[in-house]
Amino acid sequence: MTSAIDFYFDFSSPYGYFAATRIDALAAKYGRSVNWHPLLLGAIFKTTGCLPLPMVPLKGDYVYRDFERCARFHGIAYRRPPVFPLATQLPARAMLWVRQAHGAPKAVEFAQAVYRAYFVDGVNINDADALAPVAAAIGLEAASMIDGANSAAIKDQLKADVETALARRVFGSPFVIVDGEPFWGFDRFDQLEAFLINGKI
Amino acid sequence: MTSAIDFYFDFSSPYGYFAATRIDALAAKYGRSVNWHPLLLGAIFKTTGCLPLPMVPLKGDYVYRDFERCARFHGIAYRRPPVFPLATQLPARAMLWVRQAHGAPKAVEFAQAVYRAYFVDGVNINDADALAPVAAAIGLEAASMIDGANSAAIKDQLKADVETALARRVFGSPFVIVDGEPFWGFDRFDQLEAFLINGKI
Repeated sequence: MTSAIDFYFDFSSPYGYFAATRIDALAAKYGRSVNWHPLLLGAIFKTTGCLPLPMVPLKGDYVYRDFERCARFHGIAYRRPPVFPLATQLPARAMLWVRQAHGAPKAVEFAQAVYRAYFVDGVNINDADALAPVAAAIGLEAASMIDGANSAAIKDQLKADVETALARRVFGSPFVIVDGEPFWGFDRFDQLEAFLINGKI
Repeated sequence: MTSAIDFYFDFSSPYGYFAATRIDALAAKYGRSVNWHPLLLGAIFKTTGCLPLPMVPLKGDYVYRDFERCARFHGIAYRRPPVFPLATQLPARAMLWVRQAHGAPKAVEFAQAVYRAYFVDGVNINDADALAPVAAAIGLEAASMIDGANSAAIKDQLKADVETALARRVFGSPFVIVDGEPFWGFDRFDQLEAFLINGKI
């Protein structure tokens, strides 16, 4: 019996989005399931002292080019969102509510729809009016979701989840932990696959 | 006719070392030559505000594991040096002197010997007494090299080279520029190769 893969991501992270298009298929290939954990990188960066990539001098300009090249190289649809980066409390909380109300598979479907809405269609996913149609399009009752996402219980749960991630030394997006082995970055998915094949790396 | 590849690296950068083991063969495969440019990341980080990786909370512990995994994954000899990171003024200046005195191919041979000395044999490459035997082993007159490395002219040249790199928006190690296209990181060598094949990415 093999354990699930923990997949951490922020909805504002292009590399997290790229990883989200691949993680389930990669895991399934090696008989693993995936637990999806939305993060708030803003909270994480308070611990690491890092800035969001686009705000780092020199590196900031480079990463926009890298996002587009990575998408083309891996054959993933991507358009630079009009607002980037974005706070992602709303979609992260909404995902937790969807999981609670409709189960993990629906929450993953929602997460993938949110990522596409942001990184392909340019939707401001942290805005309730803009997020509601994304939820409705996959059959969710949007008003209930927004209410649920704004509940104290869900807010507390997301805070606790981010604390738990930090305690596991998660510091970026995407971040994968499998059998205790951490992998940071979509560009480590080749090494992640080697680990899934061999049980070591 | 195709232009040379510019390869920027810091002698204290493990990913720069990994890249240095591959860049010449990769370039040659596509009919390119390589200009090797030693950098001082300390000077670069003053502009970007970045910290050396091992000093970033959480990320610091992770990267040591990543260095070792990347080396194993790519089949590159690597041992964590006893002192890391290291200031690298001496080997960077020495490389410029070797190029001036003995030409670019010898300077590249020296750079590869320095990287191996640091990341395989644990030599403190910023210490003149420790660096001298590394130079001698490839037939260089070590005392002349150390004197040359410490000359005002070579010091000025390295400063100017780092300024030029910054002006070209180089912010990390390894960093490659080919036909104006920048690539940061050994983990972008797959995309670099795609660019060399297709002339675009």
